[in-house]
Amino acid sequence: MKVTRFSGNPIVTPGDVPASRPDFEVVCTFNAGATVFRKQTLLMVRVAERPRQEEGWVSFPVLNAETREIEVHRIAKNDPGLDTSDPRVFRYKGEGYLSSISSLRLARSSDGFHFTVDLQPAIRPQEPYEAFGTEDARITRIGRTYYINYSAISSFGVTTGLITTTDFAAYERHGIIFCPDNRDVVFFPEKVNGKYACYHRPAPKHLGTPDIWFANSPDMIHWGEHRHVIGARADAWDSGRVGGGAPPFKTDRGWLSIYHGATPDDWYCLGAMLANLDQPHRIIARTPHPILKPETDYELKGFYGHVVFTCGATLAGDTIRVYYGAADTVMAVAELSLNELLETLK
Amino acid sequence: MKVTRFSGNPIVTPGDVPASRPDFEVVCTFNAGATVFRKQTLLMVRVAERPRQEEGWVSFPVLNAETREIEVHRIAKNDPGLDTSDPRVFRYKGEGYLSSISSLRLARSSDGFHFTVDLQPAIRPQEPYEAFGTEDARITRIGRTYYINYSAISSFGVTTGLITTTDFAAYERHGIIFCPDNRDVVFFPEKVNGKYACYHRPAPKHLGTPDIWFANSPDMIHWGEHRHVIGARADAWDSGRVGGGAPPFKTDRGWLSIYHGATPDDWYCLGAMLANLDQPHRIIARTPHPILKPETDYELKGFYGHVVFTCGATLAGDTIRVYYGAADTVMAVAELSLNELLETLK
Repeated sequence: MKVTRFSGNPIVTPGDVPASRPDFEVVCTFNAGATVFRKQTLLMVRVAERPRQEEGWVSFPVLNAETREIEVHRIAKNDPGLDTSDPRVFRYKGEGYLSSISSLRLARSSDGFHFTVDLQPAIRPQEPYEAFGTEDARITRIGRTYYINYSAISSFGVTTGLITTTDFAAYERHGIIFCPDNRDVVFFPEKVNGKYACYHRPAPKHLGTPDIWFANSPDMIHWGEHRHVIGARADAWDSGRVGGGAPPFKTDRGWLSIYHGATPDDWYCLGAMLANLDQPHRIIARTPHPILKPETDYELKGFYGHVVFTCGATLAGDTIRVYYGAADTVMAVAELSLNELLETLK
Repeated sequence: MKVTRFSGNPIVTPGDVPASRPDFEVVCTFNAGATVFRKQTLLMVRVAERPRQEEGWVSFPVLNAETREIEVHRIAKNDPGLDTSDPRVFRYKGEGYLSSISSLRLARSSDGFHFTVDLQPAIRPQEPYEAFGTEDARITRIGRTYYINYSAISSFGVTTGLITTTDFAAYERHGIIFCPDNRDVVFFPEKVNGKYACYHRPAPKHLGTPDIWFANSPDMIHWGEHRHVIGARADAWDSGRVGGGAPPFKTDRGWLSIYHGATPDDWYCLGAMLANLDQPHRIIARTPHPILKPETDYELKGFYGHVVFTCGATLAGDTIRVYYGAADTVMAVAELSLNELLETLK
């Protein structure tokens, strides 16, 4: 199956995006939700920012939920209580902190390839559950409403929040729809058997692994009737972990989802699964091989290398455009044929 | 504050309960939900059973969800892949298994102290999410319906299921209402601000600790608008972890909940918290000291010692009867004064 990366990749980079305040720098622009709105392709890009770093110190941002201001904390680099072995999450005296804080910034394009990024975030951390950031938006249109779910991260855990908009100017918040640990939620674009539907990805502490589950809802806010969908597969590209990627497309043969999987050594790839139209927790097929794996320089090297990770794709005719974060640093896009992809899912 | 243990404790023991099949033995009878139904006190007791053990082997039960039969697996005790250091959960070749399987058995009493236990379970494992057992029922009456939530355990994780009954003879299943890792769910006995309400206890893998959260629901099946309630407290009886215990009582001063806390070295105690009537995620006070801590022989010694753990309490006049599992082995009951307990919550 042919997958064509856009020759102008990456399409959004930290250099294209001004920091939201003068003492911060943009370190990553990645994992964007995608939709089409008034003939434009919109990306809701995760923009990770951090304080400009000083020699000898690690400075990191945390929202003060009372003042709604992002405060800068700093720890001496040689403090023995500090562990920075993972560039994404570091530990200090037993507590976990993120090295940057993410907000969600709109990027707009009339051709789907060349994007202009807004100067300020559309959605920024402001609630206690967002003290470490708002990440990895997915956008799903149902009727006239665009449902934006995102990871709300804080010391309380990794949760999923819901925001709606009809115009990408005013946003309404609906609180936390999945309690910790849960991310990679993707909504179905229409009701299934009379209820809203989603895949979600809980990560349990005591038993079980981070797998994809199905749930339904009367109102998009309250979720239940959870059913297990898929877990990691032995000896495959998704043998380490799995999670939802782009919101599913409805096809004649079933619900088509592009999801991410990782190997145990954290190579993140994209594959696809096809689910029963009436019972989307029943999987008909999964791609035996990744449809996209880290190969290019911008996918292999960056803030966290060997990663391709999607939060959104668009469909026009037979062409799927997969928007994806590469190496946790930049946004890229690739095209593939819907029918060719369905051929691999038998 | 005075807490009076019943002089006839324990009130239900494994010796009182026949095994559900001849090749099994009852090892624990504990963590019962409690309610009053047709003037009788009903306990829904967690009955843990295991295959009779053979010399040189560890035998353990797992539900086959297709046949709905509980199958017996066995591993040689000297197998180097076997780790039985925790009597509750053992590990074999990287997978976790429970050493017994729990079902839910009714016990009935006309005085609240002397119970007769049914010969067979009211609720037994039958779904894939229950392959390792059904545990720790809570019973909440709303209108004419009794809502029974319980931990559904399997290799998929620790989830919470919902069953309803109006007569404790016919039971209706409503699936999984909280995905893994989530247990210790307690329902409020009436709607709060027009919605059903509960406390629940997610246990996240990546960030955060096993804390008590609040959620609401339009229908008791779909849950959302999650809010953090309490976590462990430094230097207190609940410094290790916390979880819901008995469903809350409504009082003039707020929602009164008896919950469990543990020290980091796994002494499980009971305490109480008082919550705002309109905003039950806002806590007014927590008991500075445990109201019940393991002290008697049957609380200190057993399958897993140093544990008192409640899933249900009844209220008549000023008297709270707390039914609790002791040492993960037997059921016991203690009485205390509602008003005295409220005095400690200022």
